[in-house]
Amino acid sequence: MDTETQTLLNDQHSKPNQGLSLTNAENGVSFDPSQFQPRVRDRHISYGSINGAVPLPENNRDPEMPGQQAVVFRRLPQGMLSTLSSEFESLDYELCENKIFKEEESKKSPGSITKQNATRWVVVFFIGVCTALIACTIDICVVEMTKIKYGFLKKYIEKCVKENCLYIPYLQWLGISCGFAFLASVLVTYGEPVAAGSGIPLVKCYLNGINVHRLHRLKTLFVKAAGVTCSVLGGLAVGKEGPMVHSGAAVAAGLSQGKSTSLGFDFGILKAFRCDQEKRDFVTGGAAAGVAAAFGAPIGGVLFSLEEGSSFWNQNITWRIFFCSMVSAFTLNVVLSTYHGQLGILAYDGLLNFGKFPDIPFALLELPIFIAMGIIGGLSGALFNQMNYHISVFRRRFILSRWAKVLEVIVVCSVTVSVGFIMIYYVDDCKPLGAKDAVEFPIQMFCEDGQFNAVAAMWLQTPEASVRALFHDQPGTHNPLSVGLFFITYFFLACWTYGLSISSGIFIPALLSGAAWGRLVGLGLYRITQGAAWADPGKYALIGAASQLGGIARVTLSLAVILIETTGNLSLGLGLMLTLLTAKFVGDFFNAGIYDMNVQLAGLPMLPWSAPPMCHGTQAQYIMSKPVVVLKEVERVSTVISVLEDTRHQGFPVIFEDRFSGSQAKQTSFGVLRGLILRSQLKILLKEKPFCSSPTGSTRPPISLETFRMYYPRYPASEDIHFTEEERASYLDLRPYMNPTPYTVPKHASLHRTFQLFRALGLRHLIVTDDNNEVAGMITRKTLARYRARICCGAIDFVELPLGGHGVPP
Amino acid sequence: MDTETQTLLNDQHSKPNQGLSLTNAENGVSFDPSQFQPRVRDRHISYGSINGAVPLPENNRDPEMPGQQAVVFRRLPQGMLSTLSSEFESLDYELCENKIFKEEESKKSPGSITKQNATRWVVVFFIGVCTALIACTIDICVVEMTKIKYGFLKKYIEKCVKENCLYIPYLQWLGISCGFAFLASVLVTYGEPVAAGSGIPLVKCYLNGINVHRLHRLKTLFVKAAGVTCSVLGGLAVGKEGPMVHSGAAVAAGLSQGKSTSLGFDFGILKAFRCDQEKRDFVTGGAAAGVAAAFGAPIGGVLFSLEEGSSFWNQNITWRIFFCSMVSAFTLNVVLSTYHGQLGILAYDGLLNFGKFPDIPFALLELPIFIAMGIIGGLSGALFNQMNYHISVFRRRFILSRWAKVLEVIVVCSVTVSVGFIMIYYVDDCKPLGAKDAVEFPIQMFCEDGQFNAVAAMWLQTPEASVRALFHDQPGTHNPLSVGLFFITYFFLACWTYGLSISSGIFIPALLSGAAWGRLVGLGLYRITQGAAWADPGKYALIGAASQLGGIARVTLSLAVILIETTGNLSLGLGLMLTLLTAKFVGDFFNAGIYDMNVQLAGLPMLPWSAPPMCHGTQAQYIMSKPVVVLKEVERVSTVISVLEDTRHQGFPVIFEDRFSGSQAKQTSFGVLRGLILRSQLKILLKEKPFCSSPTGSTRPPISLETFRMYYPRYPASEDIHFTEEERASYLDLRPYMNPTPYTVPKHASLHRTFQLFRALGLRHLIVTDDNNEVAGMITRKTLARYRARICCGAIDFVELPLGGHGVPP
Repeated sequence: MDTETQTLLNDQHSKPNQGLSLTNAENGVSFDPSQFQPRVRDRHISYGSINGAVPLPENNRDPEMPGQQAVVFRRLPQGMLSTLSSEFESLDYELCENKIFKEEESKKSPGSITKQNATRWVVVFFIGVCTALIACTIDICVVEMTKIKYGFLKKYIEKCVKENCLYIPYLQWLGISCGFAFLASVLVTYGEPVAAGSGIPLVKCYLNGINVHRLHRLKTLFVKAAGVTCSVLGGLAVGKEGPMVHSGAAVAAGLSQGKSTSLGFDFGILKAFRCDQEKRDFVTGGAAAGVAAAFGAPIGGVLFSLEEGSSFWNQNITWRIFFCSMVSAFTLNVVLSTYHGQLGILAYDGLLNFGKFPDIPFALLELPIFIAMGIIGGLSGALFNQMNYHISVFRRRFILSRWAKVLEVIVVCSVTVSVGFIMIYYVDDCKPLGAKDAVEFPIQMFCEDGQFNAVAAMWLQTPEASVRALFHDQPGTHNPLSVGLFFITYFFLACWTYGLSISSGIFIPALLSGAAWGRLVGLGLYRITQGAAWADPGKYALIGAASQLGGIARVTLSLAVILIETTGNLSLGLGLMLTLLTAKFVGDFFNAGIYDMNVQLAGLPMLPWSAPPMCHGTQAQYIMSKPVVVLKEVERVSTVISVLEDTRHQGFPVIFEDRFSGSQAKQTSFGVLRGLILRSQLKILLKEKPFCSSPTGSTRPPISLETFRMYYPRYPASEDIHFTEEERASYLDLRPYMNPTPYTVPKHASLHRTFQLFRALGLRHLIVTDDNNEVAGMITRKTLARYRARICCGAIDFVELPLGGHGVPP
Repeated sequence: MDTETQTLLNDQHSKPNQGLSLTNAENGVSFDPSQFQPRVRDRHISYGSINGAVPLPENNRDPEMPGQQAVVFRRLPQGMLSTLSSEFESLDYELCENKIFKEEESKKSPGSITKQNATRWVVVFFIGVCTALIACTIDICVVEMTKIKYGFLKKYIEKCVKENCLYIPYLQWLGISCGFAFLASVLVTYGEPVAAGSGIPLVKCYLNGINVHRLHRLKTLFVKAAGVTCSVLGGLAVGKEGPMVHSGAAVAAGLSQGKSTSLGFDFGILKAFRCDQEKRDFVTGGAAAGVAAAFGAPIGGVLFSLEEGSSFWNQNITWRIFFCSMVSAFTLNVVLSTYHGQLGILAYDGLLNFGKFPDIPFALLELPIFIAMGIIGGLSGALFNQMNYHISVFRRRFILSRWAKVLEVIVVCSVTVSVGFIMIYYVDDCKPLGAKDAVEFPIQMFCEDGQFNAVAAMWLQTPEASVRALFHDQPGTHNPLSVGLFFITYFFLACWTYGLSISSGIFIPALLSGAAWGRLVGLGLYRITQGAAWADPGKYALIGAASQLGGIARVTLSLAVILIETTGNLSLGLGLMLTLLTAKFVGDFFNAGIYDMNVQLAGLPMLPWSAPPMCHGTQAQYIMSKPVVVLKEVERVSTVISVLEDTRHQGFPVIFEDRFSGSQAKQTSFGVLRGLILRSQLKILLKEKPFCSSPTGSTRPPISLETFRMYYPRYPASEDIHFTEEERASYLDLRPYMNPTPYTVPKHASLHRTFQLFRALGLRHLIVTDDNNEVAGMITRKTLARYRARICCGAIDFVELPLGGHGVPP
């Protein structure tokens, strides 16, 4: 609940301030000291009064540059849909090179560097293995229990078709499915709400630099894994791939720390990796391993992690990610081969193996068809996202209590089962039982002997198996009408399902809907061309699946690789890429991808890839937070305590002893910058009490970095620490602990430049300084995330999001 | 020849200075003003006296932190092999957000942003098309002329075997080959020396931020394309893939500017892209398109560009690169299909199509074999690189004149042909003429009727065809002895050939040597297992090829993808990756990859991925260049002229009007920082003469950005401009043109932090400031590139490279 700029909420009330930065003394206009609390010494002054970004006035002209007008960011009203949550913290990617860190570094030998590096590879190896094992467990559970479930249902259906008691298997189906759905929902809703949904948006946010609470806990991992198994067994329109990626990330975050705070043990190893920066690198690898395991696509995994997550491409990290991904794919292959009784063969490439496609060449004249299918995918993807957005908004408004969430899951599950049953009952699509098409549970229903109901086959199996069927069944296996009906119902069901309070991925539902309409296109072409070799319905099902997923998720490059790896088909590669790019373009014209939409709805302050366009005229001083709460290099303990109690800021600039009272012109600043100290560091210092009696500084040796690492990532609460009067009156020497060289920007730097610096280096705090290196303001992730350029239908809307406290993870 | 820190050469003579930064006034020790030229006003003072990085004294202890010792960088002597060339400039990736830029930006509408973005995609489309067309032209020329050459030779050999006149075809072969080799060498040596070699190292350097002169000229492109065709036709052990990547980069750099300075025309379009930043993004795409065309691997192309080139991963750029790569692959496919008479079929995936591998599963027990092969590849790769290093050193020492370079090519070519001929003559490896193995020029030699000489088949075709043969020939086609002999001769020939003064790639020679010993391993396994299905010699040839190339070039991820894409085989993917990673690890233990070695030899100041380890204790103030030549905001024209004439610096900090003379403590600085102006900007300003008579500044409207772009990238020489006395006495207002917010670091920032900032943002100049925001020093690419941690055989050697002027592109 802590937040760097929690009190930005206040800025609704501080409108009179808004002209301030345009009228300060140095810019040649008058300065109003009554609006301004330059430096905080007295604990009765509200430390929390940081004013949010001072909005740009309507006539935002730079007095120094006549005729030049900056972009005007339209301030949106505080509302549920466009508010940036202030509940999320940033991760600290910046290395704090303070004295104690340098002291530790100087004692290291080159050998220890090599050893630490080797340890990273070992850790990454185990991350790959564990991720794959978890993925295998989920998969094998699903496969085995699906067999039992549908085997049981098949028996009763076949019996009841003859005895005219079909309501019995219907109720059985309903009961079993709703039971699993109930379990899936209760686990998530009451157990760990952060495990809801796909997990990919949250992992993206984590890699972007947002500290999503409880995302990587052991409990979350368990709920996610067990939850997704139940969701799939519940017969809902969900996939298990997103949750596997999340599991990989959680495994990485856990294993790399060598301790579990939940279980309360500490192996005492891997202590050097207990910081946000190292952890993130491991999590990137874990996410890649998750993709590798889920799809059997090690290269796709690396690309996915890089495309979605990281911003700074470092070759060393990339190789580790690649290794992690590879180990995961290997482990999976070995385990699955063994499970299928072929020990040592390594023939099972991945869980989501859509079956090998033979080499299908394609002709030049098919390119327009691929582009057209890309357009369809883009349009339907945009529609899907828009509908899902409205459903999510509805959920956020009205489905608030836990039981309501569970109830909604039951309702969706019942509807899914009922729709499926009705379709099986009414659509008469009988096909001969071929030897080749391995339908796992062929159900005769009202078909003649030796035939089976093709619709029932689609519903009575896992969605993965349905995708496989649509890709590989012979032309003529499916009736266009039943495939069309299936597409429509499944498309809307998937849209309704995504965002429920269960663990659920969107990959498989999207692929399945796409495969359905793609196959329809293929069937049409097959008829028109009277069975031309190139008009293979299976091939078009694959193109359709790619197009649909591309239109919904908009992950182009990695998706192309994943599909190529999982279908083992390279010759169609170019066609897939063309379709995916088209789908992405068309979709982006209307709205954002489903993951980004989720992130936006939850108000997560994710930073986009680049600054809004045309923001070169917006200066840092107009958007920065101020006044800034600062600390002296040697600060009174009582002041530190009260600053921690009264503010929620996570970082405090440390200034040089009072030059402030000196000159007049300097009244706009908060003192000469000397460093930056974090709230977490202060908390530990208060707990460890390395106090001194003199305001000139301490002579005692400082607390070691080892101690700081011990507390990571959960820090002592200052309220729980008891201080004697003597302690309160003593001093705390911050110099050995503060970051002596925090990153800064001059106050007249542009938003563009500020953003670039912040994003490229993955910063948490950026201090705005004036021409004399004195602290003028502070820029955090939330400051930058507020200014957005929304591009829709060719128009750009520049908005400034308000900050609020409603945020719930998507 | 210009250089930011040309005069760092002087620092051999300024040793007495070396304690300076440790003894300046602010650090509490005495300051010696006689060593110090604070601000340059008089043109008779040598502006060029910037002292290079003051070396760390042996007892490099930070006075503020007792007991803390920074890493000591061992200063290497000035020598040919470890000197950083000072001849290379940096590119400017930083956006100069000066007033005229902001003014232009403020006039833009959102529509123009969209339009500019759309234009980027169009340009990228044409880059893809042109790159593929060039690649096709090279390829078709090579194929057609090879047919003629070897057809001719075959005829004479067969005739002369009977008539015992084999010296005739030998001389013919020698003559034809040396003719082409001579042509190839003369083109490069006398035409455009920068077109020598693979081109990949130079493209890497460009993407890293080094402005390699003439790299992207039209002439270079022509020499490269024609040169590589001749080299391949000369029968040398070279590939054409590296040059194709270079061609792609050159096409991109040319097309994106909408003008050709060489041909002297300007379409007047794409003016907005005439800056280093935009150009680099296009070049990244062009390089990817080159890989895509050369290997038929669009995804591999994207990865290659990213792995080798870029540091900041921006999704938008990635998609454009992907699109460019895809367009290139498509174009190639269409053209080649048409060339092969199959218009509209799209069956020709790439030029380097090694033929489709059928799905070959592999067993767990093969993993140790793959790892062992990775080790062999890593070892032999390291050996290759080491030998090539020594050969290159020899060349740099002794083969200096142009005719000697041409002569060396002729010698290598003669040796290659002779060795080939001797092997054909003496090795008796007769195989029956199978219908299946499509040997293009089967030569009977001394074999019986219905048989052909297998060795002759290896030598009398392009290296690509030999690779294909080793991958796909039936077990038993090749004699282990002849393959072994072929490997040994080819390995050493390739090592000798790489680095000659011709256009030549290393990919194919490496793959071919690897395929040879890989096939040997496969043949051994085939015999041991008595023909087990998994012991396919072709499969092991592929693994060997990958391993060898991985050991030489060390590009892991992209190489895996390229090999997968080009062989159409995914099931072997994991095996390939394992081998590649092993080869890379083993190779890296001994030396750097061949490309990095090339770069190092040429003294190119390429920045590695991260700062040297353990350099947190080395402060910016110890490595920065100083004194700094600074300019005032409104500077006298005569001063500007003399600064340009007397220094070679590329950027000058602009300071606030003289606060310098004021206080005493400020004598260590050069004034309060206000901005940064580039040499190129000053040159244009002197040419355009927007002078004013008053030292308070100009009231005239400033020169537009349009004018600045017009000059890009070749700026007027200040020597050529005539100035009247009146003009010399007037003033130049720099404020509208200077970058008002250049990036800075505090002087006590660590080398690690400085490096990270510089690298992540792709900077050219980084100004070091003191606590009061006053200029203390300057850091450029060469400053940072000098400090290296060389890791070899597990030990780290911290070295400081000297700067010199010898650099010649590799």
